[in-house]
Amino acid sequence: MPNEMERLLDVIRGRGAKTVGLQFPVGLRPRAVELAEDLERRAGVTCLIAADPSFGACDVPEMPVDLTVHLGHAPMPHLRYRNVFFYDLPTPLPESWTFLDAAIPLLPKRVGLLTTTQHREWVQPIIEHLRGKGIEAIASPPDRRVAYAAQVLGCDYFAATNIADRVDGFLYVGTGDFHPLGVAIILRDKPVVIADPSTGEARTLDEVRDRVVRQRWGAIVRAQDARTFGILVSKKVGQDRGALAADLKARLEAKGRAALIFHMDLVAPELLEGYGIDAWVSTACPRIAIEDYLRYAQPILTPQELEIVLGERTWEDYAFDEIRA
Amino acid sequence: MPNEMERLLDVIRGRGAKTVGLQFPVGLRPRAVELAEDLERRAGVTCLIAADPSFGACDVPEMPVDLTVHLGHAPMPHLRYRNVFFYDLPTPLPESWTFLDAAIPLLPKRVGLLTTTQHREWVQPIIEHLRGKGIEAIASPPDRRVAYAAQVLGCDYFAATNIADRVDGFLYVGTGDFHPLGVAIILRDKPVVIADPSTGEARTLDEVRDRVVRQRWGAIVRAQDARTFGILVSKKVGQDRGALAADLKARLEAKGRAALIFHMDLVAPELLEGYGIDAWVSTACPRIAIEDYLRYAQPILTPQELEIVLGERTWEDYAFDEIRA
Repeated sequence: MPNEMERLLDVIRGRGAKTVGLQFPVGLRPRAVELAEDLERRAGVTCLIAADPSFGACDVPEMPVDLTVHLGHAPMPHLRYRNVFFYDLPTPLPESWTFLDAAIPLLPKRVGLLTTTQHREWVQPIIEHLRGKGIEAIASPPDRRVAYAAQVLGCDYFAATNIADRVDGFLYVGTGDFHPLGVAIILRDKPVVIADPSTGEARTLDEVRDRVVRQRWGAIVRAQDARTFGILVSKKVGQDRGALAADLKARLEAKGRAALIFHMDLVAPELLEGYGIDAWVSTACPRIAIEDYLRYAQPILTPQELEIVLGERTWEDYAFDEIRA
Repeated sequence: MPNEMERLLDVIRGRGAKTVGLQFPVGLRPRAVELAEDLERRAGVTCLIAADPSFGACDVPEMPVDLTVHLGHAPMPHLRYRNVFFYDLPTPLPESWTFLDAAIPLLPKRVGLLTTTQHREWVQPIIEHLRGKGIEAIASPPDRRVAYAAQVLGCDYFAATNIADRVDGFLYVGTGDFHPLGVAIILRDKPVVIADPSTGEARTLDEVRDRVVRQRWGAIVRAQDARTFGILVSKKVGQDRGALAADLKARLEAKGRAALIFHMDLVAPELLEGYGIDAWVSTACPRIAIEDYLRYAQPILTPQELEIVLGERTWEDYAFDEIRA
């Protein structure tokens, strides 16, 4: 990572920073010690490695340092970060496009391309490669919460909804189900295909989507008789929806339910035990309710799912939770 | 809890507080919802229940509210808290002193009394009860980090060391081993007896102390060959020993070891995985290294134990970690 390190050293010198904080997602932990040692040696600073994991550019806590270096996520354009250097770590272009070719039989002729920050330099080469195979792929321009073309977050599907009327399906290039899952649920008439460069395999998201939809229905049914709701509000800068929580509390109380607001950093099942709450509503990262559902003793809903419980929204009008700026 | 609630309602009215944060240790979670509902109804405020657990008066994070209410711990006199109301929850006097009588055969004639905040109103009655049984118990006055006579913390043994030369042993009234464990190690020639009002039983701490001492010796031996040390610094207001961490880093480096500082809120084993660190040194709550030792993949030391690894202190001069103001 030579160029990015030079850019960082320039910023450290320019600001006269003596202390530098380093924030990593879990997957980059193996590089933390080497980067910190390198920085301390070359810049003469003292590093503070943040051991609280970072889950995204929504999650950039202030540190008691002159400069915070955040790795693995692109800044969200609508957020203001103070003294944060986003250390860019794009994944180099792959040696071959076989993982992409594996997806081609599953794709319609017009697809929307979706991916994550680290693959953003792949977007144009992928479009060109697919064009050579007779598939027209398009990429949405960025938006207030996504900094790059085609970038999708687990809580922001602008890159899909923005071009939905111009495509017959979506191709997600990346690992895991969560980023494109919301797209598969929001735009249920358009197939979503995953091409995974880490495994080399391609697959549709139909099965996962159907299982998650069944689980969400189960969560809503389980919450119908809840007397006391706990509404979760995150401390994380890009996940804090305190005003929404206050609104949900008022709407619950107007319908004769009790509701209390819980304020926390990391959301985890063991932190919610012992309160006697019947059902949770998470206004934090949508991933918590959807992906970690089975780990919680009580049903845990998104705000839109609570609206179904309250009779304010129909199941047919189900909406995936997004955090909009 | 009528009187304390009235006092809190007065403070809320006096300040015109509209939002109130509530902080609980894990053991008081079952009372959280009832207290929040009561406050919202009687004071017309909106409550925010802090779901991040609080481990002591060292751990009172700022909340985005007009007033923070902290339950279960006495304020540390040397810390400055902003807009914090310490809600007092002393345990009522027990119906009988049988648990105390169970300890009498194990006690010398002159003992130092040690206990935790919630039993502070028991101190004088216990002294009187023991006097009737021919035992002279004394209680140390408070100090900079302990607000009440006889109060002992897992990180502060002033209540014992201050009176050590006037007693032949100690009586700890409370639950669990950790609070008096440091006393048993620091003052190893004075027996420490626990009288536990929750179980009604009394016992000495000899066995636990000997096991912990063996574990600490094992941790020190395991850390001897470590190349890279990770030094933990806590974000918690009363556990932040950043200056000590910087000093330990410099001393490690002077001895040819690599050392990096890790900054975090809650310390937990899964948060320290994947970094490739050989041994940890915790400057946060001493309980982490001592009580949770077996949960960590690498040895985890206190600052004083690191001094033994570095050859700056002998094992005979072993000192239990305390956080001094």
